[in-house]
Amino acid sequence: MTAPLPSCPVFSAAVARVDGAAVQPLPNSRKVYVTGSRPDIRAPMREIRQGDTPASSGGGANPPIFVYDCSGPYTDPEAVIDIRSGLPPLREKWIAERKDSAALPALSSEYGRRRLDDPALAALRFPALTRQPRRALSGRKVTQMRYAKDGVITPEMEFVALRENLNRQAWLKSLRESGPDGEKMAARLVFQHPGKSFGAAIPEEITPEFVRAEIARGRAILPANINHPESEPMIIGRNFLTKINANIGNSALSSSIAEEVDKMTWAIRWGGDTVMDLSTGKNIHETREWILRNSPVPVGTVPIYQALEKVEGKAEELSWEIFRDTLIEQAEQGVDYFTIHAGLRLSHIPLTAARMTGIVSRGGAILAKWCLAHRRENFLHAHFEAICEIMNAYDVTFSLGDGLRPGSIFDANDEAQLAELKTLGELTEIAWKRDVQTMIEGPGHVPLQLVRENMELETRWCREAPFYTLGPLVTDIAPGYDHLSSAIGAAQIGWRGTAMLCYVTPKEHLGLPDKNDVKEGIIAYKLAAHAADLAKGHPGAQIRDNALSKARYEFRWEDQFNLGLDPDKAQAFHDETLPREAAKAAHFCSMCGPRFCSMKITQEAREFADGQGPDESGR
Amino acid sequence: MTAPLPSCPVFSAAVARVDGAAVQPLPNSRKVYVTGSRPDIRAPMREIRQGDTPASSGGGANPPIFVYDCSGPYTDPEAVIDIRSGLPPLREKWIAERKDSAALPALSSEYGRRRLDDPALAALRFPALTRQPRRALSGRKVTQMRYAKDGVITPEMEFVALRENLNRQAWLKSLRESGPDGEKMAARLVFQHPGKSFGAAIPEEITPEFVRAEIARGRAILPANINHPESEPMIIGRNFLTKINANIGNSALSSSIAEEVDKMTWAIRWGGDTVMDLSTGKNIHETREWILRNSPVPVGTVPIYQALEKVEGKAEELSWEIFRDTLIEQAEQGVDYFTIHAGLRLSHIPLTAARMTGIVSRGGAILAKWCLAHRRENFLHAHFEAICEIMNAYDVTFSLGDGLRPGSIFDANDEAQLAELKTLGELTEIAWKRDVQTMIEGPGHVPLQLVRENMELETRWCREAPFYTLGPLVTDIAPGYDHLSSAIGAAQIGWRGTAMLCYVTPKEHLGLPDKNDVKEGIIAYKLAAHAADLAKGHPGAQIRDNALSKARYEFRWEDQFNLGLDPDKAQAFHDETLPREAAKAAHFCSMCGPRFCSMKITQEAREFADGQGPDESGR
Repeated sequence: MTAPLPSCPVFSAAVARVDGAAVQPLPNSRKVYVTGSRPDIRAPMREIRQGDTPASSGGGANPPIFVYDCSGPYTDPEAVIDIRSGLPPLREKWIAERKDSAALPALSSEYGRRRLDDPALAALRFPALTRQPRRALSGRKVTQMRYAKDGVITPEMEFVALRENLNRQAWLKSLRESGPDGEKMAARLVFQHPGKSFGAAIPEEITPEFVRAEIARGRAILPANINHPESEPMIIGRNFLTKINANIGNSALSSSIAEEVDKMTWAIRWGGDTVMDLSTGKNIHETREWILRNSPVPVGTVPIYQALEKVEGKAEELSWEIFRDTLIEQAEQGVDYFTIHAGLRLSHIPLTAARMTGIVSRGGAILAKWCLAHRRENFLHAHFEAICEIMNAYDVTFSLGDGLRPGSIFDANDEAQLAELKTLGELTEIAWKRDVQTMIEGPGHVPLQLVRENMELETRWCREAPFYTLGPLVTDIAPGYDHLSSAIGAAQIGWRGTAMLCYVTPKEHLGLPDKNDVKEGIIAYKLAAHAADLAKGHPGAQIRDNALSKARYEFRWEDQFNLGLDPDKAQAFHDETLPREAAKAAHFCSMCGPRFCSMKITQEAREFADGQGPDESGR
Repeated sequence: MTAPLPSCPVFSAAVARVDGAAVQPLPNSRKVYVTGSRPDIRAPMREIRQGDTPASSGGGANPPIFVYDCSGPYTDPEAVIDIRSGLPPLREKWIAERKDSAALPALSSEYGRRRLDDPALAALRFPALTRQPRRALSGRKVTQMRYAKDGVITPEMEFVALRENLNRQAWLKSLRESGPDGEKMAARLVFQHPGKSFGAAIPEEITPEFVRAEIARGRAILPANINHPESEPMIIGRNFLTKINANIGNSALSSSIAEEVDKMTWAIRWGGDTVMDLSTGKNIHETREWILRNSPVPVGTVPIYQALEKVEGKAEELSWEIFRDTLIEQAEQGVDYFTIHAGLRLSHIPLTAARMTGIVSRGGAILAKWCLAHRRENFLHAHFEAICEIMNAYDVTFSLGDGLRPGSIFDANDEAQLAELKTLGELTEIAWKRDVQTMIEGPGHVPLQLVRENMELETRWCREAPFYTLGPLVTDIAPGYDHLSSAIGAAQIGWRGTAMLCYVTPKEHLGLPDKNDVKEGIIAYKLAAHAADLAKGHPGAQIRDNALSKARYEFRWEDQFNLGLDPDKAQAFHDETLPREAAKAAHFCSMCGPRFCSMKITQEAREFADGQGPDESGR
């Protein structure tokens, strides 16, 4: 349900969009919540209802399937959506209860205060924020890693455990008790091929204690800035469901705030587990505020992008002071993770000289330029411990950036890339000692046979800190199809243990993604992540495949569409060939037509198997 | 150039289409031919010309790149295209010279003769064929495998060797001799990461003798029916470039002959190495004739589909006599390979009883139904040696069908599938003893971790006969995106040694592909095949990636588009964000805009590396 809204000139476009398609539940789906040990721990899930098996295929009911749901309140018809008010601060009470942080009298960032005081920005500013930013009390660390090391299971950790289990145990129990065929149905739906985990160790049931232990060990992160209480806790780690990130953000060339908020709600509708706001244009402070207040998923940024805006694009004029103020500005807005390119050292830069495509990471290039201009060590590396202090004060998670990632197959796994990765391992140890949650960014462009080395070196050097890769693209010859070229690499590296996959859209290398490109990128990556989960043997990952295959086999067309990643497209494709409503109930498909259907033969095969056996088969 | 055409009511649509976009060369490309030991051995290639490196990036010319070209005369402006005349019979002389076959006085197939004599079909019939079908002389075998075993290098084999080498040695020589930077340029363009071949052994240069040896050994096939002299020879085997197949064909529900011919020319334009005509509707004899006479690539069929049409869809009424006549009918038209589901034995059928999705192969289901109806062994298995005789008489290649391939992740690698695969291995030995070229069809739906077992068992049981897989799809949850779900599996199994990948379009499981779907499927598979070639370490595979990356790095936008798999889409995507013509020459991209460009930093890094070194880096 959406509230009636007074008119609002700047955001009417965004409001209109969020009022529309993006807030409808997906077809035959409803939002359900699984409650934990206290009533305010309610983990969201999407329940997909199914039709009955037709009598001709034996009849019987098909249980609803639960799937992971990161779309937030937008797909809950009970929720009141008003993007000018933002989402309810789900975690506010949990944060306050810990009594280790306090509301500040004012923004700590000088730049933040300036933006707040500028009357010219009033029309752009998010209007409804009344609470003050919080910061850790002096001497305290408010990171989930610190709590985990102290043996504390936070509500966030419990929320995550509920979510990752997808209500599986309860579902299975009720399925088994549902009637004489319940046990058989459960066996068929849950069946999965043994995975090959390459070192992952995923328990049958994710417990809050398991979540805690993984975070304490550094093998998983739970990005949850205390100033982003609107976020629904989620976890990134090799022993959990593989996650995906969607990049949004305006550039100097295009896009408005309204469009970016709209892209965020769109991205999470289709399965973005986190979003990164990579804005580089005007008003990025205000854009970010709108995104954060309305985002139920963790938001990441690359603070050096904004710092560069502050020095009008002149990288050599960057300074630690400007960067530090930017970190604090963004941390107090609620950014959940920062890409910090601290692993790019001055001494690595000459290693890129013989590359085909040099330094293609924007952040990497900015810092390389600074290092070269000053002939000094990267100031992010020099001030790394001071950065850790800031991260600790708000629980911002490190995403240690790969500024020297390869931009081409030619440059894959070269000395520059690997020297930086090794440095990221050293920084991980420093961050962990200071209780800062940390993940490691990875490439890029890597041919299939070199993917494995990336994961193995990351595992060794960064001691299993969650790996977060961009693709990788397994060939360079397909501009216009790089979502696909990279999904091939993403499935591969996800199987090897990469915890989060950063999506690539079809427009990569060519232009800025529109909403359709965002969706295409997300679906490609949900698919790759799921393929990886199946291959690792993530418990229950195959339930959805089995349910969909059963629906397909029984010609339950609507169920087949609705159990898929993109019901809208599946339905539209089917309509193109067999448009009539009646065809949705047809017991045949467009491949063979009504006269002969291969699926029907199996019924006879079953009768044969049950019967006397063949005459001349020799069995 | 296209000839002026008199009006033709039935095919005016097709002619109009083939006259249009599909016969233009791709942008900045021209057809070149490399001539072999005799002037009529001319292997086609596509040469992509490039612009110069801009002076700001150091200047210099960039050599043209040669890519494999299966589009036939359609992209040659010198060729006269008239689909009512068909393509020139390139191999006619080679076939005649061997003096082991002769033209027949009439069609051997009773059904073929009936179609030819039916005046009602005159308007549909391909008008221009004057030559009679050929058949091997009594006691002779006209297969490339027989010649290869006899130590004969046929013109077809030499043609293939030229094609697979992509003119690389000559190109490299002229590049090295082109000037002072020639050697450096050659080193950068050719550089490739060592592959991991899983048993493939691809020589630096493919010689005609290597082609012969691989065919003799059964590890490669050269599908080339003596009645399809229009085909340009190509090879399928693990030690050659990975090939892809595109399925076309009308169904009971849709499509016309004109559309299918149009789809064929479209499919080969984008890279289909072979096409399979899977027609099941009306007039499939005539449709096939039009496709064959105009196809420069080998054409495969599943003859049981047509046999079923002849018994009006009643599988139990099929007989060896009807099937035999169908094989001869199609062999005399020139079909290059037949899918024959001879490995599905009566005793395997009960193994499918517990499956989630039963028998999903249409051919498999037809034969299972026949076996069940008669309680007898599959007549294709029973008559396998007689089928070999027919294959020998025309050089039709076996594509031994996987009638029991899994139709879902649940059913992957199950007992039914593997029992059939083992039988295919037994049949391969029989076929090889009789000198019939043979490849093996493979799944289907297989999660990533089970892909390897498929390839390993095929290698062991079928003794490295070329594997030809459909995907496999690595998850079932993405209807509408199964081209992508299967491209992930295809890249993986291609890397492991699969020789040809059968494409899947986005419409798979939902509807019939239109032209756009055909293109999307082909590009996804060209990409997967190329990723596999890179990973195997196919010599020179990386040249195209390196050239494209260099163009990208130097902001040669047009070259970046043209070196890619789909120049049209790349250009269109770029136009969406930066539409002005001037932007094509812009030295920045839409990601960062004109003010700051990460690519430019590398120039400075190079200068730094060449200079005194850093002040405080410790190097």
